[in-house]
Amino acid sequence: MRKVLLIGVGAGDPDYVTVQAIKALNTVDAFFLIDKGSSKDDLLALRREICERHIEGDGYRFVQAMDPERDRTAEAYGDAVKDWHHRRAEIFERMIAEELGEDGVGAILVWGDPSLYDGTIRIVEELIERGNVAFEWDVIPGVSSLHALTARHRIPLNRIGEPIHITPGRLLTDGMPPGLDNVVVMLDGECAFRKVTDPDVDIYWGAYLGTRDEMLFSGPVAEIGAQIEEARAQARERKGWVMDTYLLRRRKG
Amino acid sequence: MRKVLLIGVGAGDPDYVTVQAIKALNTVDAFFLIDKGSSKDDLLALRREICERHIEGDGYRFVQAMDPERDRTAEAYGDAVKDWHHRRAEIFERMIAEELGEDGVGAILVWGDPSLYDGTIRIVEELIERGNVAFEWDVIPGVSSLHALTARHRIPLNRIGEPIHITPGRLLTDGMPPGLDNVVVMLDGECAFRKVTDPDVDIYWGAYLGTRDEMLFSGPVAEIGAQIEEARAQARERKGWVMDTYLLRRRKG
Repeated sequence: MRKVLLIGVGAGDPDYVTVQAIKALNTVDAFFLIDKGSSKDDLLALRREICERHIEGDGYRFVQAMDPERDRTAEAYGDAVKDWHHRRAEIFERMIAEELGEDGVGAILVWGDPSLYDGTIRIVEELIERGNVAFEWDVIPGVSSLHALTARHRIPLNRIGEPIHITPGRLLTDGMPPGLDNVVVMLDGECAFRKVTDPDVDIYWGAYLGTRDEMLFSGPVAEIGAQIEEARAQARERKGWVMDTYLLRRRKG
Repeated sequence: MRKVLLIGVGAGDPDYVTVQAIKALNTVDAFFLIDKGSSKDDLLALRREICERHIEGDGYRFVQAMDPERDRTAEAYGDAVKDWHHRRAEIFERMIAEELGEDGVGAILVWGDPSLYDGTIRIVEELIERGNVAFEWDVIPGVSSLHALTARHRIPLNRIGEPIHITPGRLLTDGMPPGLDNVVVMLDGECAFRKVTDPDVDIYWGAYLGTRDEMLFSGPVAEIGAQIEEARAQARERKGWVMDTYLLRRRKG
């Protein structure tokens, strides 16, 4: 039976890889990579570096495909993402069918952890539903950007007894959500933190976490928001891409 | 300068340990352990197993202290936890001062990740504020029970574009919080999921994640809640302790 592994390789630092992931990497015949265009070459290179560093021998290969185009207009967000997943599923289906032998092991390396704002699990579920290619599958958890962010800032995600809210940036349209004191924001391409004007909210921001390009800022968001926005824009200009995440926390008494 | 490392060792499976954590473990002179009484011997044993498995040589030692008593009545929850952290801080202060040489490295092994519903970072902050003993410190992130839970169930934490809410069980007093569709519950000693009666809410529950005692249940919480409560009580009776966490998700469409 073919097998497909979704391996969380941690959020940035190649040393975030777990022993479980390393054992899994060493069973893989083919790594399926999606090429997002030249600006994200760094991320492909980091995936290859993880394999080179942690796999013994060279009994594995990379199978690369181009990422399908995606409608990035805001109107049809959910549908556009679903359509994009659907076309990615077709690509993976073809790779599994054509590149894996009867007992072959394929893997998709996922940045951070596969459960957190990543579509790969849904894509595999779609493949199983379609039923065109039979395979077993498993998920290997990883150190997510949540935990990389808090470790690098040396802060807890929550204060005693408090809930934590994790949200995509596009839902943070009206500033700090009422009634929430610890808000982690992911997938924010628009610097939504600039809409938070409350003087009692701190931001703990990080980009390229765990890598040599890492950037960290913390302080009252109303004061340092503009500085973060500018530093982020410059880094993005320089590298061609940026991955960032942040925690907003309301100070108390 | 003395150094104290807070090392996230992952949520259960010794193979959840990262390469970064292994490198850190190998620099440690003294591991500070808090003994919670015989019923949690398993957890101490697992920490020792992680050290034995991943540290080369035997140039390290364990320093063990008894956990201070804690007022577990609900009335004074926040104050009781703060008081308990305060007394734990005194214990760690003494261990750092007495057990580490001028350039010694001490470590506290934290289950899962140090940022998520764990008080160790706050304790270290308190020690620094008190200023009685000088040291550098660092945090090593780990695979948290969030990601262990979702990996073992092979599910994403969120659906496309949706927020995720993480809450202690004691805040889940009135069933599924209104307006939230993905709720992760931690530190729930009271099976608060039994209060969720909505027929359209699924539970993904796990205990002893990643260990040989692992238990997993999933399905409509109104249907299988009683079964989970019973299985949990039996396991707790058998082992003397239980660590569990779960995701509640409202079905759509």
